[in-house]
Amino acid sequence: MNSRQYLQIPGPTNIPDRILRSLSQPLINHRGPEFEQLLAENTQGLKKVFRTANDVLMFPSSGSGMLESAVVNLFSPGDTVLVGSVGVFSERIAVIAESHQLKVIRIKKEWGQAVKADDVREVLEGDREKKIKAVCLPHNETTSGITLDIEGIARMIKKTGHPAVTVVDAISSLACVPLETDLWGIDIVVSASQKGFMLPPGLGFVSVSPKAWELRERSTLPKWYWDYKAVKEKNKAHQFPYTPPTTLFFGLKESLTILLNEEGIENVWRRHAVIGTAVRNAALAMGLSLFAEKGYESDTVTAITMPEGIAYKALAEVLRDRYHVIIGGGLQKLQGKIFRIGHIGALHIPEVFAIMGAVEMALVQCGYKVRLGSAAQAAAETYLRMTSAAVG
Amino acid sequence: MNSRQYLQIPGPTNIPDRILRSLSQPLINHRGPEFEQLLAENTQGLKKVFRTANDVLMFPSSGSGMLESAVVNLFSPGDTVLVGSVGVFSERIAVIAESHQLKVIRIKKEWGQAVKADDVREVLEGDREKKIKAVCLPHNETTSGITLDIEGIARMIKKTGHPAVTVVDAISSLACVPLETDLWGIDIVVSASQKGFMLPPGLGFVSVSPKAWELRERSTLPKWYWDYKAVKEKNKAHQFPYTPPTTLFFGLKESLTILLNEEGIENVWRRHAVIGTAVRNAALAMGLSLFAEKGYESDTVTAITMPEGIAYKALAEVLRDRYHVIIGGGLQKLQGKIFRIGHIGALHIPEVFAIMGAVEMALVQCGYKVRLGSAAQAAAETYLRMTSAAVG
Repeated sequence: MNSRQYLQIPGPTNIPDRILRSLSQPLINHRGPEFEQLLAENTQGLKKVFRTANDVLMFPSSGSGMLESAVVNLFSPGDTVLVGSVGVFSERIAVIAESHQLKVIRIKKEWGQAVKADDVREVLEGDREKKIKAVCLPHNETTSGITLDIEGIARMIKKTGHPAVTVVDAISSLACVPLETDLWGIDIVVSASQKGFMLPPGLGFVSVSPKAWELRERSTLPKWYWDYKAVKEKNKAHQFPYTPPTTLFFGLKESLTILLNEEGIENVWRRHAVIGTAVRNAALAMGLSLFAEKGYESDTVTAITMPEGIAYKALAEVLRDRYHVIIGGGLQKLQGKIFRIGHIGALHIPEVFAIMGAVEMALVQCGYKVRLGSAAQAAAETYLRMTSAAVG
Repeated sequence: MNSRQYLQIPGPTNIPDRILRSLSQPLINHRGPEFEQLLAENTQGLKKVFRTANDVLMFPSSGSGMLESAVVNLFSPGDTVLVGSVGVFSERIAVIAESHQLKVIRIKKEWGQAVKADDVREVLEGDREKKIKAVCLPHNETTSGITLDIEGIARMIKKTGHPAVTVVDAISSLACVPLETDLWGIDIVVSASQKGFMLPPGLGFVSVSPKAWELRERSTLPKWYWDYKAVKEKNKAHQFPYTPPTTLFFGLKESLTILLNEEGIENVWRRHAVIGTAVRNAALAMGLSLFAEKGYESDTVTAITMPEGIAYKALAEVLRDRYHVIIGGGLQKLQGKIFRIGHIGALHIPEVFAIMGAVEMALVQCGYKVRLGSAAQAAAETYLRMTSAAVG
């Protein structure tokens, strides 16, 4: 293909050229001294992105694998966990837990709505026997484009005095929106390579608190591939229990250089806030409705209700075939009802003009009525308002 | 760098990823069978882009080198040539000709204005002794963003019956805007790799008509590196008189695949017309003035008069530092008076939104008053009007 592509599904994301190039290096021995240093550097860098002094472990895995890793490392058959289920991906840890003979209490919300601190407080306060071993929450749910207030919920959990650990799925939020693992006291944070890290899929990450390590010691669920203890032990010798994806380690080093040394993680967060707001305001300016609950709109993925009379398939095809913009559709019961624009990773305001300008034209070509230029106007106004706009 | 870059100088242009990747192949023997086939394929492909059955030769050279090659191959000291001089680059062949002891008659126009068929007719009709050996014209002049009506001028030259050959500088027009070497009867067309071919600089091209070959036979100017005859002879044995830039040959093959087999050259021309018009209409919608004479605006580079009170340097710096959009400034006497946006090569409408949206914001940040979204509106309206907009 000759055209620039805008891969605006909610991850995998567009990969910056220099990361792509870093992936073309000749393979190295994963038991040699080069890998040793790569593992040490990447682990240190990840801790900075996770904002934690806890152990951070890596796995050859998708994000979902990391969810299962948390279940099999921390729990035993018959244990009870509380799951905030607000979409396909936050429901997934509940399904995984049940498949491993755990009891799951769900706080279920209509897709688009957020679990709040009070929802969690209510259940924990009702758990007089302290049976609930963990509170499992998504930081960001791409199904509906919402972000939970993990900080507020975590603070509330502490306030109740309940001993449950917190397990946070930060797959589509880490290295995009603020997440303070230690400051907020999150025991398990899981993530993966193909979102904020701007890498191909295939590398999973998890941070493990001392309290989570205690659960690991008591857990009786069978584990081999996912065993945190085995990985930690091998990591001490700069190795893995099995072959690690060395090529992704090259990419991760490049990604961490960009995130930490060049842009700076707080600036990455700020940029995602600006870009997310610009995308939402562009959508609103086109007369579209956001699917997410007000106040919980995600800065990494925007879910937009399909306008009356426009077919998702037609819109997505025009965007892909004419403008090389790839968007996501609604999942399961939301199929055909919403479309989703991912804005994760190496995205800047010119790309918002490109993407939302294409969306505007594609909508018009599908029969939607909108004043052309509305999206760009709103995106530009948002950008200028949210950044220091004055020059010299 | 982590951001997408928009290299909108009038060439070198943005290089598509797959061409960049084609440049990373291990080197080959330039006297071996792989190169033999590469040379044959590229020469055949170039002829299709040049729209000619004439010989097309390649040189390790910039575009300017190809201008000198035309001079030293076709002429002898004391010969007279007519040069249409409308900017820095069309003046260059006059300077080169004079440095080789040729007499140059210039049709000089204020920068921004075009040489017309009547201008050339007048001079040729006045040349009763048929002293003028060649009419040298730029197809596209990037200094001011104009494109000459080469078809009309060539038709008129034939009509006068004057025996002069035509030498056309198509460096910034070939593979962008329609050029019919044989249909229009152009004897020499020179071009280079870094514009419509979307390649790095370093490879020059020239097409040579039978009439031009006759001049080559009579020419007494010293020539070795540029000798068309020597290159043609060696090419017959699938070689070069010296080391050819093999890596650029890999890229050229990829470029020709895109231009000829995938997009198709007429579609490439149409796309440049749409993109060029969209850029101009976006500029006009922002209240800016085009520098080019009406009716001669280039579809590969747009020259825009700097608005009152805005410094070019400030505008270019905001565009580069904040939006990763690189524009060109005014050359020589136009320094600070205009800015230039190149739109050559792998550019599609989403990139126009990105680039012109950034220009709009940068202008606002420099103190210019414009309704945000004006550029996008005009670009979208242009695109929808000029392309088949209806869907399904």
